[in-house]
Amino acid sequence: MNASYIQPQAWSLVEEGFNPKHVKSSESLFSIGNGAMGQRANFEEYYSGPSFQGSYIGGVYYPDKTRVGWWKNGYPEYFAKVLNAPSWIGIHVKVNGQELDLYTAKEVSVFRRELDMQKGLLKRHFEATLSDHTKIRVESCRFLSMDQYALGAIEYKVMVLEGTASLEIKSFLNSGVKNEDSNWDDAFWQTTTLHAQEEKALIEAQTNKTHFKTATYQGTQVFVNTHDRQTPSQTIKEDLEVGHLYECSLKAGEEVVAYKYAGYVLQRKHNKPLQEVAFELVDQAASAGFPALLAAQEKAWKQVWDMADIVIEGDVKAQQGIRFNIFQLNQTYTGKDATLNIGPKGFTGEKYGGSTYWDTEAYCIPFYMATKDQKVARNLLQYRYNQLDKAIENAAKLGFSNGAALYPMVTMNGEECHNEWEITFEEIHRNGAIAFAIFNYYRYTGDYTYIPEMGLEVLIGIARFWHQRATFSKDKNAYVILGVTGPNEYENNVNNNWYTNYLASWCIDYALTQIQKVKDGYPEDYHRIMGVCKLKDPELNKWAKVAQNMYYPKDLTRDIFLQQDGFLDKELTTVRELDKSDRPINQKWSWDRILRSPYIKQADVLQGFYFFEDHFDLASLERHFDFYEPLTVHESSLSPCVHAIQAAKLGRMEQAYQFYLRTSRLDLDDYNKEVEEGLHITSMAGTWMSIVEGFAGLRMREDKLSFEPRIPAQWKAYSFKINFRNRIIKVAVQKDVVRFELNGQTDLSIRVFGERHVLSPSKAYDIKI
Amino acid sequence: MNASYIQPQAWSLVEEGFNPKHVKSSESLFSIGNGAMGQRANFEEYYSGPSFQGSYIGGVYYPDKTRVGWWKNGYPEYFAKVLNAPSWIGIHVKVNGQELDLYTAKEVSVFRRELDMQKGLLKRHFEATLSDHTKIRVESCRFLSMDQYALGAIEYKVMVLEGTASLEIKSFLNSGVKNEDSNWDDAFWQTTTLHAQEEKALIEAQTNKTHFKTATYQGTQVFVNTHDRQTPSQTIKEDLEVGHLYECSLKAGEEVVAYKYAGYVLQRKHNKPLQEVAFELVDQAASAGFPALLAAQEKAWKQVWDMADIVIEGDVKAQQGIRFNIFQLNQTYTGKDATLNIGPKGFTGEKYGGSTYWDTEAYCIPFYMATKDQKVARNLLQYRYNQLDKAIENAAKLGFSNGAALYPMVTMNGEECHNEWEITFEEIHRNGAIAFAIFNYYRYTGDYTYIPEMGLEVLIGIARFWHQRATFSKDKNAYVILGVTGPNEYENNVNNNWYTNYLASWCIDYALTQIQKVKDGYPEDYHRIMGVCKLKDPELNKWAKVAQNMYYPKDLTRDIFLQQDGFLDKELTTVRELDKSDRPINQKWSWDRILRSPYIKQADVLQGFYFFEDHFDLASLERHFDFYEPLTVHESSLSPCVHAIQAAKLGRMEQAYQFYLRTSRLDLDDYNKEVEEGLHITSMAGTWMSIVEGFAGLRMREDKLSFEPRIPAQWKAYSFKINFRNRIIKVAVQKDVVRFELNGQTDLSIRVFGERHVLSPSKAYDIKI
Repeated sequence: MNASYIQPQAWSLVEEGFNPKHVKSSESLFSIGNGAMGQRANFEEYYSGPSFQGSYIGGVYYPDKTRVGWWKNGYPEYFAKVLNAPSWIGIHVKVNGQELDLYTAKEVSVFRRELDMQKGLLKRHFEATLSDHTKIRVESCRFLSMDQYALGAIEYKVMVLEGTASLEIKSFLNSGVKNEDSNWDDAFWQTTTLHAQEEKALIEAQTNKTHFKTATYQGTQVFVNTHDRQTPSQTIKEDLEVGHLYECSLKAGEEVVAYKYAGYVLQRKHNKPLQEVAFELVDQAASAGFPALLAAQEKAWKQVWDMADIVIEGDVKAQQGIRFNIFQLNQTYTGKDATLNIGPKGFTGEKYGGSTYWDTEAYCIPFYMATKDQKVARNLLQYRYNQLDKAIENAAKLGFSNGAALYPMVTMNGEECHNEWEITFEEIHRNGAIAFAIFNYYRYTGDYTYIPEMGLEVLIGIARFWHQRATFSKDKNAYVILGVTGPNEYENNVNNNWYTNYLASWCIDYALTQIQKVKDGYPEDYHRIMGVCKLKDPELNKWAKVAQNMYYPKDLTRDIFLQQDGFLDKELTTVRELDKSDRPINQKWSWDRILRSPYIKQADVLQGFYFFEDHFDLASLERHFDFYEPLTVHESSLSPCVHAIQAAKLGRMEQAYQFYLRTSRLDLDDYNKEVEEGLHITSMAGTWMSIVEGFAGLRMREDKLSFEPRIPAQWKAYSFKINFRNRIIKVAVQKDVVRFELNGQTDLSIRVFGERHVLSPSKAYDIKI
Repeated sequence: MNASYIQPQAWSLVEEGFNPKHVKSSESLFSIGNGAMGQRANFEEYYSGPSFQGSYIGGVYYPDKTRVGWWKNGYPEYFAKVLNAPSWIGIHVKVNGQELDLYTAKEVSVFRRELDMQKGLLKRHFEATLSDHTKIRVESCRFLSMDQYALGAIEYKVMVLEGTASLEIKSFLNSGVKNEDSNWDDAFWQTTTLHAQEEKALIEAQTNKTHFKTATYQGTQVFVNTHDRQTPSQTIKEDLEVGHLYECSLKAGEEVVAYKYAGYVLQRKHNKPLQEVAFELVDQAASAGFPALLAAQEKAWKQVWDMADIVIEGDVKAQQGIRFNIFQLNQTYTGKDATLNIGPKGFTGEKYGGSTYWDTEAYCIPFYMATKDQKVARNLLQYRYNQLDKAIENAAKLGFSNGAALYPMVTMNGEECHNEWEITFEEIHRNGAIAFAIFNYYRYTGDYTYIPEMGLEVLIGIARFWHQRATFSKDKNAYVILGVTGPNEYENNVNNNWYTNYLASWCIDYALTQIQKVKDGYPEDYHRIMGVCKLKDPELNKWAKVAQNMYYPKDLTRDIFLQQDGFLDKELTTVRELDKSDRPINQKWSWDRILRSPYIKQADVLQGFYFFEDHFDLASLERHFDFYEPLTVHESSLSPCVHAIQAAKLGRMEQAYQFYLRTSRLDLDDYNKEVEEGLHITSMAGTWMSIVEGFAGLRMREDKLSFEPRIPAQWKAYSFKINFRNRIIKVAVQKDVVRFELNGQTDLSIRVFGERHVLSPSKAYDIKI
């Protein structure tokens, strides 16, 4: 189902009219989060129709026992599941004894749901006629505070429009939750305490096995006609439910408002009893009041948008798309907590499990570097440094030794959670992306300190892995890398995937360079690291031999690198020639057919050209793009953005624009017919890259920002800001001019289409394009 | 644990002394079966120690819902599980109120278990002292009738040695059985009726989903001191258990004997109510009496051995090994029922599921052709013909069309049950083995009628598959076969596996030849088949193009075919250089490491040299053997036999002998430390081939039997018989002479070491070797 029911608005997602068929999609699309927790846009009131309930707490997972067909040595014992957490949104309403339930109500009208991205609010209103003809109007507003990570708030109004009504409002917490995606139907949560006092309530629960001790809490205030504060008629305490019941009688025109301050507190963040922490939060929130919290929320989001917004003029769908992407990225990861990372579904669903993929390093870091303080990107790098020991253990399980590190394909705590052999054991290029991110971080921020302090140990572990993973082929008189899966997961267990070989060789070279640089510039760190890693010169020489003598598969006729050995044996018919009924091939074709086809899931050789653009000239990019893109089905959410960037670089703006639309509105337009399961969060950073690196052509060249701004024909103008080494540069691109504005203390030298320009603080600088 | 506790005896397996650690291994090794049903050697009396209970009925399976990590298109929905069936062996004994249980008995002595392979009997005796110091002796004898497929019999004697005893003997049936190997803990059986009358009992149960309606029945007779027939003191009827209880009091020196006639009857074989069928069997058996049934059993096995026995002089372990193999093959498959096949674990365990692998065609058919009436092999071929429609459906699921057939990797009813993509979708060489078996059957039996009647349709479906599965590589200007797994499953998704390519090309050629032959000789069949298959000349031309222009990977320097493209990129260190601690690699190494190693699980290129020996000269075989065998870890039970045959052909008798021992005593000596799970049945046919094709060098050459007899240094002599086109030839090999004896009506011309000899009926013919 194409989610075209979402109205195109620049700052909002708006759904009008109630349609039960849209509920699960909307629950994904209207998800809210604050980096520490998140929720699908489930209704507060009871709903008996099809729905996918989801509340998630960052970093709280369950090691669900692995399910495989045939066990293979080295498989991890468990898969880290993103956990549906106890729910605190419940506000159930009974009207003259009838449960308010949109699925069964006699009539629902003027239903409107809005995700206000500017302010970070989920709003809803509707009118419902119940079976006794009582008609009510409900207005709700809910948000997760970007200001206080543990706090959420709801304002829930019920007005009587026709008839009189005796109302029961039940505000409650519920720990009777399940995961839809569970391997063995284990119970994930154990509820330990339910507590209610005054108008506050709390459920303490902890996850089985992982023992994350959490308190889900709430405080409720109920008013009739604004001022008439109600007291609960009853305290509710059941096995897995606790809360308060309020009862009142209203005439037509009267209303009742419930304010709910709620959220999660985690024991690992506090030394005090959780109840104390939680009820303090409630008291503070209640004493500030809903309007003040709302104002703080607006302010917090304003700060985000001030830096991260991209304004597009003349194309509201594109505008909505990019804002939706930026909004979701900020809801998922704020960079404040170094133990968290960017899960592929964020807080919008359960699928994929784990929280960290190579997506973080390959796709997300540029966005966070440019739109946040550089500490945020550094936190992401440090996350991997903290898990280096586990990466070394992981490599050891696969037979590597001497401190070789293989970072997992999917992880929550550093341990591998994925178990398909062709991915887990063979999609090892992920290791290279982690090294590349270190390079990229330094290239952009100029902050070298990360490398001597932490990064070099990571680079050494990775270089050791590549050195051991390569095999010397007597036949080729070169080093080969056998049995890998590249970024194009539609090929498995191939030999000499060019991207992997190239990246491996680069990783070793880069590690060698950094060892020398640290030796020269940070002798103390150098000695510490050499001691920890037990690294001596002869080993370095062996690495260098591998890097220098790496084999790269080539097609000499076409003058291109081959995706892998044997690629030319395939029947090279393009995607265009495929019948529509065969698409998407991952739903229509058996796996073997996909594997022996030439079709490419996402950028593979071209991913290498994206990372190492400077190593190749434009003509070479063009040859490779023209060979590989027509074979690419883009069935990964991570595919269109890289191609958008490269198409833009090749001056093919119409194609770039099409890729942009596909990446930015992937979920809004539900291209892959799976939005009900949740959103594609990590690819959203790719959308940002499509504009900033693609259309605006942002690059780092010789330690300077460089731009090659272009604009799609469909747009009047677009503008964005980037944070570059503690300066803010605003870039505004129009049809024939680009304007730069610098916010900082000193001049900044940049390049535009190769030419040097010097920006001065607070002065607009226009360049014809 | 090496099962060295089995005493080497020429006709028996004997275990002496009771050791609970041996129980599960012995339950496998002492398994009994009659082709229609089989049992692990579980105790009749109660046993509380570690045990693996198993009773199996040929062809009765459950479609257990598939369990996978990540679903891939084309995977089958279920895996056919071999089902543990209701048990009829139960004879529980209470002595003065104490349950007889060898695991907890105060003392167990003179325990002896014997599998009498000559007569097909499982015998046991022991003495047990119970906690009240009563000492008893038990003697049991059990068999599954080779004469009446639905009948089994037990004689169970209890003697009081010391003290007096009041005994309770409970003879019962039990349908409260489970599979150890179950994906989702489904209930596999539903018990519908329990019935007891006089001394007979019956449980009707049917499998869920597959609805195999079965009756498990028994009749019991109990005598004290031989003559004093007892009547049951009680009828037992519980939820899943039915039977009779007998009570008696014995003094020292007295004994009680229970005779039990029991088994399974299946509704699909009968039009009458199962109870009627079953109780008729009981009545007949009881009226014949145990000694008469025993005599019939001996006679039936004598017929088997008369034809199938191999006698080895001077090496009792080798003798025991080959007899054990021949015995188990005959217990597993008798060839009487065309709906059955040869499961890899026979009736000895649950593992692998399904009943039919390419093992049948590649390894088992020669044994059955040479030791049984040729109808048996024809039944095995017809099994595949009957499943041709399903093979066509299976290919269609993977995107093939126009009647292309892909036989499943594992099946029970023709549907694919396996689901690892690298096997299910890619180990397609199995299709070739099915065509090869047709060729092999005609080559050996001279019975061409199978081809026009049934085989040609199978050959056409297979040829169509290969034609569609090949890809034309412009780069190589030849047809390639991409993305396959060869017999060496330690390589996955390789391109141009030589064995597969060679076999594919041969299959097409063979199909084309047979089409012409049927056209010429069987015009009616020809027209029928062309009509059914809608086959026209242009299609044949396309097939021919693929067969003629197939690509074969080669190493020109070594003048050998390469196992697959890129094989020479590997580090070619031999198995000898591996550290012991790395073996077996399938238990010690992660899958990716196995894949990129050069190590070979079982004959792959050499499997091709085995099938198509005549296509290559001896020097070529030697080159390939010397290149590949040192890289082979023989971690499949199917590996040593092919190598034994080839080593013998190369005159390397010591090596051939070592391979022989490994294949023949694989389970007896528990090489792979897994005998507890059941026996390796299909590889047992390989053991037979090792002697007959290996040492004796039996081949078909120009429509004649040909021999090149050799004898291992360790043996004084060996002899065997083969059934060749309704003649029996006995071959007896001594150190320097081979004697042929022909049982038939007319002379037979054979070749020995290339020289022609004519055998006359009933006359020994000695040839110096």
